[in-house]
Amino acid sequence: MRAIVIHKAKDLRVEERTETALQSAPGPGQVAIKLATGGICGSDLHYYNHGGFGPITLKEPMVLGHEVSGFVSALGDGVEGLAVGNLVAISPSRPCGSCKYCAEGKRNHCLNMRFYGSAMLFPHIQGAFQENLIADASQCVNANGLTAGEAAAAEPLSVTLHATRRAGEMLGKKVLITGSGPIGTLCILAARAAGAAEIVVTDLSDAALVYAKKVGADRTINMATASDGLEAYHPDKGYFDVLFECSGAAPALVAGIAAMRPRGVVMQLGMGGDMTLPMLALTAKELDLRGSFRFHEEFAMAVELMQSGQIDVKPLISHTFGIEDAVEAFDVATDRGQSMKTQIQFAKSA
Amino acid sequence: MRAIVIHKAKDLRVEERTETALQSAPGPGQVAIKLATGGICGSDLHYYNHGGFGPITLKEPMVLGHEVSGFVSALGDGVEGLAVGNLVAISPSRPCGSCKYCAEGKRNHCLNMRFYGSAMLFPHIQGAFQENLIADASQCVNANGLTAGEAAAAEPLSVTLHATRRAGEMLGKKVLITGSGPIGTLCILAARAAGAAEIVVTDLSDAALVYAKKVGADRTINMATASDGLEAYHPDKGYFDVLFECSGAAPALVAGIAAMRPRGVVMQLGMGGDMTLPMLALTAKELDLRGSFRFHEEFAMAVELMQSGQIDVKPLISHTFGIEDAVEAFDVATDRGQSMKTQIQFAKSA
Amino acid sequence: MRAIVIHKAKDLRVEERTETALQSAPGPGQVAIKLATGGICGSDLHYYNHGGFGPITLKEPMVLGHEVSGFVSALGDGVEGLAVGNLVAISPSRPCGSCKYCAEGKRNHCLNMRFYGSAMLFPHIQGAFQENLIADASQCVNANGLTAGEAAAAEPLSVTLHATRRAGEMLGKKVLITGSGPIGTLCILAARAAGAAEIVVTDLSDAALVYAKKVGADRTINMATASDGLEAYHPDKGYFDVLFECSGAAPALVAGIAAMRPRGVVMQLGMGGDMTLPMLALTAKELDLRGSFRFHEEFAMAVELMQSGQIDVKPLISHTFGIEDAVEAFDVATDRGQSMKTQIQFAKSA
Amino acid sequence: MRAIVIHKAKDLRVEERTETALQSAPGPGQVAIKLATGGICGSDLHYYNHGGFGPITLKEPMVLGHEVSGFVSALGDGVEGLAVGNLVAISPSRPCGSCKYCAEGKRNHCLNMRFYGSAMLFPHIQGAFQENLIADASQCVNANGLTAGEAAAAEPLSVTLHATRRAGEMLGKKVLITGSGPIGTLCILAARAAGAAEIVVTDLSDAALVYAKKVGADRTINMATASDGLEAYHPDKGYFDVLFECSGAAPALVAGIAAMRPRGVVMQLGMGGDMTLPMLALTAKELDLRGSFRFHEEFAMAVELMQSGQIDVKPLISHTFGIEDAVEAFDVATDRGQSMKTQIQFAKSA
Repeated sequence: MRAIVIHKAKDLRVEERTETALQSAPGPGQVAIKLATGGICGSDLHYYNHGGFGPITLKEPMVLGHEVSGFVSALGDGVEGLAVGNLVAISPSRPCGSCKYCAEGKRNHCLNMRFYGSAMLFPHIQGAFQENLIADASQCVNANGLTAGEAAAAEPLSVTLHATRRAGEMLGKKVLITGSGPIGTLCILAARAAGAAEIVVTDLSDAALVYAKKVGADRTINMATASDGLEAYHPDKGYFDVLFECSGAAPALVAGIAAMRPRGVVMQLGMGGDMTLPMLALTAKELDLRGSFRFHEEFAMAVELMQSGQIDVKPLISHTFGIEDAVEAFDVATDRGQSMKTQIQFAKSA
Repeated sequence: MRAIVIHKAKDLRVEERTETALQSAPGPGQVAIKLATGGICGSDLHYYNHGGFGPITLKEPMVLGHEVSGFVSALGDGVEGLAVGNLVAISPSRPCGSCKYCAEGKRNHCLNMRFYGSAMLFPHIQGAFQENLIADASQCVNANGLTAGEAAAAEPLSVTLHATRRAGEMLGKKVLITGSGPIGTLCILAARAAGAAEIVVTDLSDAALVYAKKVGADRTINMATASDGLEAYHPDKGYFDVLFECSGAAPALVAGIAAMRPRGVVMQLGMGGDMTLPMLALTAKELDLRGSFRFHEEFAMAVELMQSGQIDVKPLISHTFGIEDAVEAFDVATDRGQSMKTQIQFAKSA
Repeated sequence: MRAIVIHKAKDLRVEERTETALQSAPGPGQVAIKLATGGICGSDLHYYNHGGFGPITLKEPMVLGHEVSGFVSALGDGVEGLAVGNLVAISPSRPCGSCKYCAEGKRNHCLNMRFYGSAMLFPHIQGAFQENLIADASQCVNANGLTAGEAAAAEPLSVTLHATRRAGEMLGKKVLITGSGPIGTLCILAARAAGAAEIVVTDLSDAALVYAKKVGADRTINMATASDGLEAYHPDKGYFDVLFECSGAAPALVAGIAAMRPRGVVMQLGMGGDMTLPMLALTAKELDLRGSFRFHEEFAMAVELMQSGQIDVKPLISHTFGIEDAVEAFDVATDRGQSMKTQIQFAKSA
Repeated sequence: MRAIVIHKAKDLRVEERTETALQSAPGPGQVAIKLATGGICGSDLHYYNHGGFGPITLKEPMVLGHEVSGFVSALGDGVEGLAVGNLVAISPSRPCGSCKYCAEGKRNHCLNMRFYGSAMLFPHIQGAFQENLIADASQCVNANGLTAGEAAAAEPLSVTLHATRRAGEMLGKKVLITGSGPIGTLCILAARAAGAAEIVVTDLSDAALVYAKKVGADRTINMATASDGLEAYHPDKGYFDVLFECSGAAPALVAGIAAMRPRGVVMQLGMGGDMTLPMLALTAKELDLRGSFRFHEEFAMAVELMQSGQIDVKPLISHTFGIEDAVEAFDVATDRGQSMKTQIQFAKSA
């Protein structure tokens, strides 16, 4: 079978790998999957373009990918609720279930997490961009009624649903989203599904903001070219109830804080490095700056909200490539002026 | 009557002021007060030592002081529940009651707040360090059973009760407090009253940490001299559930963040300027960094918790001066190696 | 001008009333309104059919009505943001703004509330079913883009938005609604707008359940005729995360409790008398039974969510009568087999 | 070894049981314990006096007891942090760790819970009143510094800590407790440790209320003999912020609801049958009636709060009997006029 493997920055290879028996025959509670679609995430791009990010660097070749869907090809003993041929969305989140954070129900903070395609630990946790995959049945959610592309988008959507739940009350709220990439635009869908009344989105790229409009932003602002930025939202101590910071860029967060009303909630999803923040404003307005990291129980919810039609991610899937064009796919995904969510198609049918 | 007036940095004067009829005769719903005790707060010291802080600077002479208690000398029409001679704690918080934040019950964010002794607006809002004061009855809480010094400490205690309420669940929690000044040490008392199981306090001054021990800290760490700082609290992604950052110093907050467990709550009380924060850690651990600013409804609670004996602030009142020694009082209060809470006595009895 | 006045049970009259100067000329901060539409609420029907409910009984003639919209006919001094001719939704909620609950931001619990059309106090608080009305500007929300019927539905929609906010997390939740009257069906819209993934509605009337389907219920169950009721939702300790009890009938609440999953939230909106509850189940499943009563800050939100298209109440407005047919309107509104929301049209245009 | 076994109502026997090898040799992760002290709980008394409660009835002989402490006599492989001779508090809560509620961190709702001494399932889950016990290390908390009696009280204290956490904000609150039995009096300690400012306790027995005073109630009211009950707390829509209902008796809950202020929280701990509630008051005041059932993560917290001195349960331990006097112990425990918490001593030392 073929897999998409990163060796070092800019050295991405589609490699043939010999499948072991272990890889094709699902054990008890497991499912064998013929991969359908894989979406390229920002962290995949960091490995591709820079060989890692911050202190996390590649130390051995690693299969990339953690936004995946596939067709069930075989069921291990004791698996219920799935059948061969089903399209499933596959969660990359594999907590241990027994550490102290798992016991408290905070599974995204599992001390022994094995999240697909991560070089945080060594040996690295291999990713899911390979034609055949064995997964735990608990990772698989039946995606009946969705396209394989939508099913593969369940993962990034889960990230934004997790942040939306952590943000608390959303019904009727004024929401600001800084950063109109895949996570920012999915936040528009998640916040709207939760009842946000008004959504304003900022970015530095008009191309990115076009997608924000497409999925329902009430207003978009190009902070690079707008004459006044967010100043219209400054009077009376600020305007927005909730901010989803999705850019990882300090200027976006700083501009957002100035436009927040007292007791507003700032969700930090963007993964940046150190940032210099206006702590006096944050303190005097009693803002609530909350980190949001990955997800767990929101994965099934993501599939369900797409199935019910409450969330439609299809307008955000801008490009789909075949596995043989993986390198081109990664280049297109890197170019924000060209693409929103880029996916790779591994197989068209079961 | 005499008042303590700041003219510019290092120019503090005890001035004789002619009392107007308006100042001695309470209107309907008002109370005339003979001031008993006034505590010196960090913001008073900023005006005294630097003429302001950050963008807030003195533009005219201003009476200082907002931590005050006094004896009721006359009652205006319609005032109930108070009698001449009563010792009262006087809240400096005077929200308008009708702006949008008042209507939502977020009175500390009132758009028209007139908080004693603040140069944020011009003309400045004059403070309460004057021998006679007219206050609204709604600002006065009967402090029966307390000393005048304790009653004057209701104000800073309220700041920490507000932060403790905003921090959420405290029962059985592990708490870190960075900064062992008056606010940090009162946080020890507030957090313990709310059920904190373990309290660790850091500072750079041994003298300050002595007070932390005195009011019940389980452990104190001098970050300037300790060999390992908070490193013992790093394993398993961190140890503390709640952090009260009371120093306003970025290194304290940064060190605290590293010792927080996932989903921990970081209360920012310290008023610093811009700070550079490790956003990756904050995001990946899903910390919740909440500003806490002043208080309102906690003022009566502060008096009640002292009256019931659940909180005893007396060990923190390190110095008391007469009004004629006001300048010395401000100098002593400025020296952290010497003093904790310094107060000025205006009158000993009703 | 004409007004709709209840004298005693079954004695409803359309009466001519002489307008006083006070009633036609708005004072400072007030607005004169030519009434457009008034919706008939369950409490209006209680006065009409029974002369009151429980301990609350009519002691003098009372103008009915509190679900109203109208056209601005004149503006008092100092009113901003409204113009003559504007269609406005008019909130019947008039808290005092200064009692202790108002100060805490819990305005629906105001100790001096003057809610339109209520016989709780004597003299009764007169209602709003009259051709001309003077209201505070703060009661009026510009309903630009809505029909007068929709604007009049802002009030009952606010009741359900308040309950939805009080219910907490709704995104992706399984929701049960017992009672498919106007409040129950509006709960469908409110819960869906807040992200509910699955909504099941019960009632004893097929006619009522037709409306539930029309506004998006995933499933309806006629508890009078279904063979198994909610039993399919009993396994694994229950199924639903949230229950909106809108019938005021004990059997509905009891059946709902049995179908709730542990830690589920039960919102009680229905106004019933004493009910016998299975406290052992409620305790062992740690359910959270929360009363929900009226609304306040949700009124503007209701208008905004209709304007943005997130909520469409039009399918629920089943009948509209002229003021001269008020008695027929009340009879139709009383017949659940025939009507959902019945409204009275006072004027067609400004 | 001897065990205390209930056969049917009023048929309690101290029986000799042959220990199997399995019972004396701890497996991996397990601990062998020489039982020290066992407290008698209300549910034990239900089995003793009535053979069960409600639908739960004895179908086979069952060892009673779930409030236990003991001395470690042997350690299984891989057990860390405990040593032979240690006094441990032993949690009776044994969730499966893998069902859906465990995965969500709601372990007290485990679908496969094996809680000591419960006849809910058949075969019954045997209790812990036996001289030797094998427990999982995860059930055992080092009780260093406590008496064996205090350690055995960790279990009922955990019940009240769980309820206190579920009740939310407690700092400075007015608290009503109905029912002054072991759970009600422990609620006094738990609520005070969490910052309750004022605690009023009701019961029908003066003997029970003496204990409430002893552990810090500000006021006690004998509802059987007081002339006015809770009427002094009715004005302004009610007085108390939080109610812990610990009696399981409907009149107590009904009287409590009338004295609650709007948006108050009512924690239901008492295990009664069906109760008729004033739903109109509950709805109109927007009370929040929350069931509270057992505990899980609060067990270690209970031990820690006793060790730190924040909670002292010793005044509530009224009687201690030897195992040979078990029947007398159950009779004394049944008599509320005589006893508060009755315990049985199995061994005095390691």
